[in-house]
Amino acid sequence: MVIDVDEVREEEVQMEGAKDVTIQILINRPPAPTFVMRRFRIKPGGYTPLHAHDYEHEVYTLQGIGEVLDGELHYTIKPGSVIYVPPHKVHLFRNIGEEDLIFLCIIPA
Amino acid sequence: MVIDVDEVREEEVQMEGAKDVTIQILINRPPAPTFVMRRFRIKPGGYTPLHAHDYEHEVYTLQGIGEVLDGELHYTIKPGSVIYVPPHKVHLFRNIGEEDLIFLCIIPA
Repeated sequence: MVIDVDEVREEEVQMEGAKDVTIQILINRPPAPTFVMRRFRIKPGGYTPLHAHDYEHEVYTLQGIGEVLDGELHYTIKPGSVIYVPPHKVHLFRNIGEEDLIFLCIIPA
Repeated sequence: MVIDVDEVREEEVQMEGAKDVTIQILINRPPAPTFVMRRFRIKPGGYTPLHAHDYEHEVYTLQGIGEVLDGELHYTIKPGSVIYVPPHKVHLFRNIGEEDLIFLCIIPA
């Protein structure tokens, strides 16, 4: 199966505490048995909610400049930044640049 | 954990039938419990071996123009192409462009 990312519907993230964040589910379960590939877009000034959960994130930054809060540490991210957020760790992504911040975020299915 | 992709060692893929392919392991197990993020680079004219295995691939194309053989179907891929290769399906990636073909490929840990 091959699709173009621009063909995939982009939906507003409705979670409380999210601002100007959209999500595309690129590879879902089914068909994928083990993990799910999503792409997020955060507009300038936007952010994901500060939260934690019992599964990990694996993130690859595609575009833009952002800040990640990972536990108590802040990191700046840019295209090519790879982020591993372990299960149960409090985290947040924020766009601190002037263009959309776009990243892949893969989670267990 | 945040790293830059350019900090990660790039190694030649030694599998028989591979030509001009390198791999970077971006997020490995451990620490990741469920799936592993790798980045591949195929030079112009290069390809991965035609093969199949009992686990799936989830692929996101970052740069270049390539061809995927997925079972008996051929697809052209470009930046933003998303590929799901199910378990046991014969597949091959080939660079048919003039710059390096670079893609993420995530597999179960």
